[in-house]
Amino acid sequence: MTGEAKPRWAIERDRARRAPAETVWLFGLHAVRDALLNPARDNRRLIVTRNAADRLGEAIAASGLEPEISDARRFSAPLDAGSVHQGAALEAAPLDWGDLSERARITPETPAPTLLALDRVTDPHNVGAILRSAEVFGASAVLAPRHHAAPETGALAKSASGALERQPYLRVRNLGDALGQLAQQGYRVIGLAGEAEVEIGEAMHAAAGLPLCLVLGAEGPGLRPRTRGLCDTLVRIGSASGFGSLNVSNAAAVSLYARSAEKNR
Amino acid sequence: MTGEAKPRWAIERDRARRAPAETVWLFGLHAVRDALLNPARDNRRLIVTRNAADRLGEAIAASGLEPEISDARRFSAPLDAGSVHQGAALEAAPLDWGDLSERARITPETPAPTLLALDRVTDPHNVGAILRSAEVFGASAVLAPRHHAAPETGALAKSASGALERQPYLRVRNLGDALGQLAQQGYRVIGLAGEAEVEIGEAMHAAAGLPLCLVLGAEGPGLRPRTRGLCDTLVRIGSASGFGSLNVSNAAAVSLYARSAEKNR
Repeated sequence: MTGEAKPRWAIERDRARRAPAETVWLFGLHAVRDALLNPARDNRRLIVTRNAADRLGEAIAASGLEPEISDARRFSAPLDAGSVHQGAALEAAPLDWGDLSERARITPETPAPTLLALDRVTDPHNVGAILRSAEVFGASAVLAPRHHAAPETGALAKSASGALERQPYLRVRNLGDALGQLAQQGYRVIGLAGEAEVEIGEAMHAAAGLPLCLVLGAEGPGLRPRTRGLCDTLVRIGSASGFGSLNVSNAAAVSLYARSAEKNR
Repeated sequence: MTGEAKPRWAIERDRARRAPAETVWLFGLHAVRDALLNPARDNRRLIVTRNAADRLGEAIAASGLEPEISDARRFSAPLDAGSVHQGAALEAAPLDWGDLSERARITPETPAPTLLALDRVTDPHNVGAILRSAEVFGASAVLAPRHHAAPETGALAKSASGALERQPYLRVRNLGDALGQLAQQGYRVIGLAGEAEVEIGEAMHAAAGLPLCLVLGAEGPGLRPRTRGLCDTLVRIGSASGFGSLNVSNAAAVSLYARSAEKNR
């Protein structure tokens, strides 16, 4: 990958080379409405109760999909038991957010973009909440490895509360390679680690005005050794008590806030 | 309630007057171990598989409880389907964190305590994550109304990842009355509202060195009108994009961080 724009044919070729796009089932009125209204979504199949069809009327019309009406009591979409579908389920292809060099581009208008990289964070509720925070704080993209990451399931979409349709969530083949590429592009790569000595506020102050990739690991294992090695600095979120640790989505929100507070200073 | 300490007999009387303490079932190896090792917990009944009994050996011994051994395949504790109990379930009384005037006391050692008040935040995963953040940032207590709040269920304990045993989670009869009481004690009461004009960093700067209660509402409805009216200031967490909103536990973490960053400046 280079910093130059890929020709159209190469994009098409790469798309075709991928494994046949696995589709996901989104569910719930909000998530389904958001996806139906997103022109970038490749929507395949819509199963709704008559009631949900009424409530989603405009979005369904906008999407051009022919809804399949299902009985509320024997809802026919293949969802996990306990999914709060509210009578609406949509089969769709994952969104295609292009490639990293595009998303991470440094331009005169955005000389100091912020990226977030997730090292094997697999819980869809956490990743959904992280996408929301990334959107609020204006991160260019959230990166995650293609495998060992939370897929764009209905549960993730629900936790993301609309942000899944708007916030780039980029799955890369190899997270370490992606971080290496970012470093070459001029990004500072800063990882969160509970035992680090540098406080995050301090590190954000030092990185103000520079392109930045914040890296968070899964709870428990934290950053993998290679990921750790690719970070310029490891930082911690100060603990008053010396006890406990933040949930990963809360750590992401605090990091993004600390970054944006420094930008706005 | 007054600022004076209650006599012991009055505490006992008030305790007895409450509805017969409803017990909760905690589950999962971590949550059960933490509760067994907490001397303040009134533990009633422990159901474990033989394997879990081995793994919890020390904690069970420390608790003095006689475990009931259950078959893994027909686990006999009354848990919700899908609860990841790992072969361990514990029936316990909710922790008694005393009353508000105790928890909110302003002393020469803690002249500027931080409290967090939750106005009808009912999702146990969010409240669990909030307890973790409150502990990390050294909040004196998390307040919630007795009704319309997330009860101390197993799901909350699991999300709290140990913090439920250590972080005061105080259920008050009436949240508005509690906020009024805090204001009288000299607390600044600051509520989060998406449409507010004051940015949180600014408000935390102004409140540095003062006792502070941060108030968060449920997603969607936000703060109720009475709660809103009891706030000295309403603040927002700045959005770069103008789109989206933070998950409530992420908003709590960011607020607590903004407060602690101001303290450490």
